[in-house]
Amino acid sequence: MSVEPILQSEEAIIQGFLAPLAAGAPGAYGLKDDCATAAPSPGCEFVLKTDAIAEGVHFLTTDAPEDIGWKALAVNVSDLAAKGAKPVGYLMSLAFPAPPTRDWMAGFAKGLADAQEAFGIHLLGGDTDRRPGPISITPAVIGEVPLGRMVRRATARAGDHIFVSGTLGDSGLGLRVLLDPSRHAEWKLSDQQADWLRRRYLRPSPRLALRDALLRHARASMDISDGLMKDLGRMCRASGVGASVDDTALPLSQAFIAVRDAVPSAAQASLFAGDDYEILTAIPPDSIPQFTADARAASIAVTDIGRFTTGTAVRLQGRDGSDMDFGMSGWDHF
Amino acid sequence: MSVEPILQSEEAIIQGFLAPLAAGAPGAYGLKDDCATAAPSPGCEFVLKTDAIAEGVHFLTTDAPEDIGWKALAVNVSDLAAKGAKPVGYLMSLAFPAPPTRDWMAGFAKGLADAQEAFGIHLLGGDTDRRPGPISITPAVIGEVPLGRMVRRATARAGDHIFVSGTLGDSGLGLRVLLDPSRHAEWKLSDQQADWLRRRYLRPSPRLALRDALLRHARASMDISDGLMKDLGRMCRASGVGASVDDTALPLSQAFIAVRDAVPSAAQASLFAGDDYEILTAIPPDSIPQFTADARAASIAVTDIGRFTTGTAVRLQGRDGSDMDFGMSGWDHF
Repeated sequence: MSVEPILQSEEAIIQGFLAPLAAGAPGAYGLKDDCATAAPSPGCEFVLKTDAIAEGVHFLTTDAPEDIGWKALAVNVSDLAAKGAKPVGYLMSLAFPAPPTRDWMAGFAKGLADAQEAFGIHLLGGDTDRRPGPISITPAVIGEVPLGRMVRRATARAGDHIFVSGTLGDSGLGLRVLLDPSRHAEWKLSDQQADWLRRRYLRPSPRLALRDALLRHARASMDISDGLMKDLGRMCRASGVGASVDDTALPLSQAFIAVRDAVPSAAQASLFAGDDYEILTAIPPDSIPQFTADARAASIAVTDIGRFTTGTAVRLQGRDGSDMDFGMSGWDHF
Repeated sequence: MSVEPILQSEEAIIQGFLAPLAAGAPGAYGLKDDCATAAPSPGCEFVLKTDAIAEGVHFLTTDAPEDIGWKALAVNVSDLAAKGAKPVGYLMSLAFPAPPTRDWMAGFAKGLADAQEAFGIHLLGGDTDRRPGPISITPAVIGEVPLGRMVRRATARAGDHIFVSGTLGDSGLGLRVLLDPSRHAEWKLSDQQADWLRRRYLRPSPRLALRDALLRHARASMDISDGLMKDLGRMCRASGVGASVDDTALPLSQAFIAVRDAVPSAAQASLFAGDDYEILTAIPPDSIPQFTADARAASIAVTDIGRFTTGTAVRLQGRDGSDMDFGMSGWDHF
C-alpha cells in the first residue's frame, strides 16, 4: 500500500507549485510579497475578467488536474480574446476542502503552465485557502487593448451580420460522453471523434488568433460560454436589437454531424448547451470581406449565421424559413 | 407566516444589487459587458490583490450581511494601504449554495456600498455562481502607486525599527465574544468595550490614511492579517533579517487591557490571533521623526515595538529581557 504525499501547508503549495508559474512576471515578486504590480503597455488599458470554476459544476471530479488547470485559464482568456485583448497576467484564488496531494498539484500546475505558454500569460499573485465545499478556482485575468478599443457587447446594430468562430455544440456532446461512455457506441462515434469531442469539453481553445481581426472589424463581440442562443440573446438585449439566425448555417463539426445522423435528439440537446468558448461577433456588411480574409489569414474558421435586426425578437429559422423553438436552452449559472 | 422573497436568477442579483455599485466606474459598463476596463493614472502602476472570505472560515453564518460586505473589501484594501497604494476598483466573484434572499443581498450590497465610499473604490465586474459549500466572496482589488514605488515586504533591513499601527489583539477578542456572549461578563467588559471589540472583528478599518507616510518613509510594509508574530516572521524571512519585539511596547486598547486584567490567559491567546488589519512596517532610524509626525498628522497611532536584527531569529522579549514563547500563534489558512 502506498501513501500519497499530502500538501499540508499553504507555503508548500505556493513555493513548490505556484511560484514557478510566476517566474516570468517581475511584478509577481516570486509570490513573496502581499500584492503584485502591473501596468499596461503605453497607449493601452487593461481589460479585466473573473470567472470561477468549481468541481461538480464547471468540471468533473474525475477530470485530470492538468485539464482543470488549463480550463480555469482558458474560460477566462476566452473572454479577453472576444474583447480584442492581449492576455497579460492573472491572479488566482484557490479553495480546497482537503489538502491536495502532490500529484494533484503537480498536474494542476502543469495544466496552468501549458495554458500560460499557449496564452502568453503569467501568474501574478493569489490566495490559497482551505474550506468545505467543492474545489474552487477563481482566476482574475488581465489583458490589454489600445485605449478605448475594447470590443463591446452592447454595440451590435441592426443590419450587422452575425459571425461565429469554430463549430458549436461539440463541448456539450463531449461532456455527455465523459459522463456516460456508452454514448460512444450509441452515437456511432469513431475513437478519434469521441476523443475530439471530449477534448473540446476538457481543453477549450480561446480564439486569441482572431483578436486583431476583431479589433479591426467587429462592431460587437463576446465569447459563447453559455450556449449560442442564450449569449446571442444577451448581446441583443444589451445592444437593443433583435437577431435572426439561420439554423442551416450553423457551423458543425464532423463528429457533431455523426451524432446528429445517429441520434438527432442528442445533437439537438447539445447544440446550445454551452462551454463552446467560440466567438460571437457583429460584423458590419462593408467589413465582411476584410474580416473573413483576416480570419482566414489567422487560420480561424468563421461562419456567417444570420443578421442582427430591428426589434427585440431573437429567432432561429429552420430550412423552410419558419421559427424553430430553442426554448430556454443554454447554461444558467444560478 | 411570511415568505421571504428569494433571488432566483443571476440577472436579478446583478441588475438589482450589484450594478448600482458599479455606477461610478465608467470602465464597468454597468456590468452589462463581459469584461471591464481600467488604466492607472499617468505615472502610476496598478497594485493587485485577491483574498477570498468564506462563511464559517472568515466570517460567521450569524454575521450581518452588511458586515460581511464591508469585511470582504476591507481585508483586501488593507493590503493596498500597507503597500502605499490608493484603491481604484475591484472585481468580485460570488458563490452561493442557495439563492440569497432579497434582504440578505440588500444588506450585503449596503455593506459593500459603505466600504466603497469609505475606501474610494468601485465595483468593476464579477461573476455570480451557485455551488455547494459555504457562501464565498472573492474580491480582486486594484490600487495604484507611482511607478516602481509599491512598498515591499522583502526590503526590511537590520537596524530598521518595527512600527505597528493601532492596537493588537482586539479582533481576536471580539470574535470570542461573538462566539460566546458569556465572555462579556466573564471578562468584566463594559457594554461599550464589548461592542468595540466585536466591531474590531466585524468592521476592520484599513489604514489608508497612513498611505502617504508609508510611501515616503517605510523601507518595508505589510498588513497584519494572520497575527503580528506570524506576519513579522514572514517579513523577516522575505527580507533575510531577524527581529526583536518588546512585549511591553505592544499597543493595546483599553478593552484589551480590561480583559488582560480580568483573565490574562484570554488576552494572551488573542494577542497574535490575527484579523487585526493593522500595518506592520520597517522604518529606518533616520526617518522615524518624520514618519511619526506624518502619522500623527494623519491621525493614525503608530508604535515603535522593536527592531529588525541581523540573523534570522524572531524574538519576543518580556519585561526582564528574556525571550517569551509565542509558539505557533497566528492564523493559518490551511
